[in-house]
Amino acid sequence: VLPRFYAPQIERGARSIVLDADESHHLVHVLRLKAADTVRVFDGRGGEWQGRLVSCDKRGAAIDALEPIAPLPEAEVAVTLVVGLLRGPAMHDLVRDATMLGAHRVVPVYTERTAVSKRRDVVPVARWRRIAITSCKQCGRAVVPEIAEPLPFSEAIQREAGVRLMLVEPTAAIDGRCRVDDLAAPARQGGALIAVGPEGGWTDAEVRLAVEAGYVPWSLGTQVLRAEAVPLAALSVLRYAWSS
Amino acid sequence: VLPRFYAPQIERGARSIVLDADESHHLVHVLRLKAADTVRVFDGRGGEWQGRLVSCDKRGAAIDALEPIAPLPEAEVAVTLVVGLLRGPAMHDLVRDATMLGAHRVVPVYTERTAVSKRRDVVPVARWRRIAITSCKQCGRAVVPEIAEPLPFSEAIQREAGVRLMLVEPTAAIDGRCRVDDLAAPARQGGALIAVGPEGGWTDAEVRLAVEAGYVPWSLGTQVLRAEAVPLAALSVLRYAWSS
Repeated sequence: VLPRFYAPQIERGARSIVLDADESHHLVHVLRLKAADTVRVFDGRGGEWQGRLVSCDKRGAAIDALEPIAPLPEAEVAVTLVVGLLRGPAMHDLVRDATMLGAHRVVPVYTERTAVSKRRDVVPVARWRRIAITSCKQCGRAVVPEIAEPLPFSEAIQREAGVRLMLVEPTAAIDGRCRVDDLAAPARQGGALIAVGPEGGWTDAEVRLAVEAGYVPWSLGTQVLRAEAVPLAALSVLRYAWSS
Repeated sequence: VLPRFYAPQIERGARSIVLDADESHHLVHVLRLKAADTVRVFDGRGGEWQGRLVSCDKRGAAIDALEPIAPLPEAEVAVTLVVGLLRGPAMHDLVRDATMLGAHRVVPVYTERTAVSKRRDVVPVARWRRIAITSCKQCGRAVVPEIAEPLPFSEAIQREAGVRLMLVEPTAAIDGRCRVDDLAAPARQGGALIAVGPEGGWTDAEVRLAVEAGYVPWSLGTQVLRAEAVPLAALSVLRYAWSS
């Protein structure tokens, strides 16, 4: 597997590129690559190139002989994950795993049972974005998912149309749960959106609000899953169910 | 949701039961239940009862008026997870999540790239078994999955028949990858077995050995997933694919 670097500044027809300071540091001091090594570069928007390391000086690591290559295919359905903010490391894991599992966008939301303060220092969006980039470098994706600024849940759910699923606990008394099979056709044409609650789950009022806004309740199997495991399980199942 | 307790000693026709010390402690000191509270008891083999807390003294918490109730349905296909030993906390998470996701059995294996020593203190099977019980209490399952003693991989793969899948990295050059759709029919009649490698992945020799023993290579999507996320994703997808 060739080492991959993130270069959002790369232009479509580029033949050479100088990596930024972070990526250059990773190339030189972590991976210890040498001149003439073959590397890959991706722009985070679906473009990927292969090239040759020329040198690394104060300006950064220079790569030339860039040739476009076919990026890893993205999921057939662009899935947005609307997720109740989780505590520190759980949120890091979530962003990393959602990226690996092909999420198109992550929208963190404040819910009634969110246990995380709204203080800026505990909602480190910039850090989540770096985690998403690192995850792309590792998993092979050429598209970096968008990590949105956190929103109140009630606001987030008004913004979207199309196929929308709300993950609810299998034990909750909620009518109209869907089978994902039934949603396959419409979802392929546009994107889909799945809402996953925080550790304490959704309140009844939130479920009602979401259903009124067009969300369909969905449960994964019959067991109660940990909050952190639900997005992984849901993204895995949807990717499988909606791939041809 | 009613509190649930594990009582493997319960007999089929029982009308009353005294919980063991650990479960009594949980009932009294963690959940702080009181006499006349309604509780549930499960035997770990698929039996579940509802009853009434009578008292808790030195002998333990006594529950009477037990009536059998319908347990949570198990997965239609009994899946055994053969998994390369992961480091400490990752292995705990794996056992907890595999239990939640309905695994029938977990068989930890030593592989060529296993980073865990074989010393007894770092292979705490008894602890994993307690984690599986705790996970059952939380997720609602009445069946505690079997956690086997760790085995060498080469030994573990000779022991089983039926549908066997080996999770391999999407980037690995391996012929004959399957589509899970194709496996649905045979799997329903018996159990199925999925093998997931450790952090460093399988060696080529291990993949060859497994294929010779009847394993079919399978990849989840096109991205490379973290070792810890692979069992969750695989169990989620199989549960969905193989449920009617």
